[in-house]
Amino acid sequence: MRLVVGRGVLDSLREEVSRFNPHSVFLVTDDVVAELHSDRVLEALGDVRCLVLGSGEEIKSLDVLKRIWRWLFRFGASRKSLLVALGGGTVLDVGGFAASTYMRGMLLANVPTTLLAQADAAVGGKNGVNYLGKNIIGGFYDPHLVVIDVSFLETLKRDSLLSGLAEIIKHGVVGDEEIFSLIERKGFSVLEEDSEFLVRRSIEVKMRVVSRDPREEKGIRMILNLGHTVGHALELLSRYSIQHGFAVAIGMVVSCLIAEEVNGFQEADRVIRLLENVGLPTRFELSSKSIGRVISLMKRDKKAWRGGIVMVLPVRIGRVEIRCVKEDRVRKALRMVLS
Amino acid sequence: MRLVVGRGVLDSLREEVSRFNPHSVFLVTDDVVAELHSDRVLEALGDVRCLVLGSGEEIKSLDVLKRIWRWLFRFGASRKSLLVALGGGTVLDVGGFAASTYMRGMLLANVPTTLLAQADAAVGGKNGVNYLGKNIIGGFYDPHLVVIDVSFLETLKRDSLLSGLAEIIKHGVVGDEEIFSLIERKGFSVLEEDSEFLVRRSIEVKMRVVSRDPREEKGIRMILNLGHTVGHALELLSRYSIQHGFAVAIGMVVSCLIAEEVNGFQEADRVIRLLENVGLPTRFELSSKSIGRVISLMKRDKKAWRGGIVMVLPVRIGRVEIRCVKEDRVRKALRMVLS
Repeated sequence: MRLVVGRGVLDSLREEVSRFNPHSVFLVTDDVVAELHSDRVLEALGDVRCLVLGSGEEIKSLDVLKRIWRWLFRFGASRKSLLVALGGGTVLDVGGFAASTYMRGMLLANVPTTLLAQADAAVGGKNGVNYLGKNIIGGFYDPHLVVIDVSFLETLKRDSLLSGLAEIIKHGVVGDEEIFSLIERKGFSVLEEDSEFLVRRSIEVKMRVVSRDPREEKGIRMILNLGHTVGHALELLSRYSIQHGFAVAIGMVVSCLIAEEVNGFQEADRVIRLLENVGLPTRFELSSKSIGRVISLMKRDKKAWRGGIVMVLPVRIGRVEIRCVKEDRVRKALRMVLS
Repeated sequence: MRLVVGRGVLDSLREEVSRFNPHSVFLVTDDVVAELHSDRVLEALGDVRCLVLGSGEEIKSLDVLKRIWRWLFRFGASRKSLLVALGGGTVLDVGGFAASTYMRGMLLANVPTTLLAQADAAVGGKNGVNYLGKNIIGGFYDPHLVVIDVSFLETLKRDSLLSGLAEIIKHGVVGDEEIFSLIERKGFSVLEEDSEFLVRRSIEVKMRVVSRDPREEKGIRMILNLGHTVGHALELLSRYSIQHGFAVAIGMVVSCLIAEEVNGFQEADRVIRLLENVGLPTRFELSSKSIGRVISLMKRDKKAWRGGIVMVLPVRIGRVEIRCVKEDRVRKALRMVLS
């Protein structure tokens, strides 16, 4: 995989793509990105076929997947053709799944436009669509090229940036104390000067973990799910009205509180303070009945084991571990954060 | 991947499956196999959920794929559940694709029941469905377990056995002179005594090649396509009324004749004689107009390059090479075999 990160690197996209000698080049994106950036991207990429998928999480559907397949086929895409997925996580997810299953896998370039996708989703190879449930159908397929232009961030709203920042903070807690303390020093404005550094380091944490367990089989890659078991449950309960990163932030708080009891983690306050300082939520209002639902959703999560709830817990900033936590402990922490 | 080959090894299926500690076990198969073998398989496997998909090439469809996904989901399959695909190449193709895309990949066991699937399709990881065209949508996913019981062969018709024998002969030409000469000595009746040996060695050739180029990216795995570029064209032109192995046999003859001219291959007669002796076709009636269609289909094949037709050519029995062959040469050989 070739990775290019920087401000303005979009201008080298055509050159980067041509390194792979693709038979032909195809571009998928969504409504919002097309409106904001298509001129610049098509200028950077030259004359390529473009398919605009719609917008929002709805584009991660079987219907859109089939639309991409048919479009590729109609215009003669071969396995040596290259698909550029331009957009946030949803475009990358459905575009990546389409590319991985078209003629058993064509060339794929990810060009993420949101902070969340730049710092997280663009690498690691997970893709999928929402059929039967969120991400139930999908696979793993590494993009051949990832081009991350942080100048895309200038058009993002504050909530979207915050959502991405939550995943960067997560990567800090999981494996890079330096990005954590940089955000501590600068607060939300860290994104003005240091977004390139943060994105690069965030991706480095992820790739280091993923390279040891690419298909999530060995229980290593799971550490990237810090905050996600609770986060996924909150997303589902809120019917996905909560931003992914916000749900992860709240989930991280739960993990920190559990870690204080389970392994003597001493920096829960430091994590909570950082999340609050940048403007991320650290609490969420739920009825006590809903807390029971969070628990049962956590148990049903793909990451659940028998006889307890498997959780990623921080040991110190920059290091986490996986523990099987008793339901009572989880419930206690949930009550502190969710009511 | 765990591989078990032998006569009667089906009886150890439950034990083999339990090595993987699956959360739950699911079985897909087709009408014909269900009718012939379901009692024996369910006895061997114990009480598992079973889905019968229909029959023939039609089960390699998006609709059947969705049916498998929904069935797995409804009955609570997790990524630690195991899907047994029991049947010929079609069941293995659609079952494997379903398993590889359900929750980004669940456990998969292939139990091939035809000679073609035992000697070829059950290993190598290719899967897919026929959407937009044959095998246009699909991927690569290695089964975790392959159990090959050659006693299944006893229920097969002669044409089905011959079709499988063609792929075994192909594996002989590609990389194992010993299986080639064994079949030479014994003719079709080789399957009575030596099917286990042939299947085992045939799979060994395939796995040796696949391990060096699992995703068909380096031009190595392509050597397994000896006879297939022409073969695929004949299958398409006959609307799949010709058996796959028969089309491959004819395709091998074309490759041998071209090899005689291109690299001085000296054993074309030996290959043709063997195919004839076991009862495989070495000629096919086509109008001269159709030969033009074969050429253009060969060019459109996933394996085509620019400026000629890429073909796998034997150098001697047990060794092949990849050459870009001029269209005129291909046309000349096609005329000798197809009219």
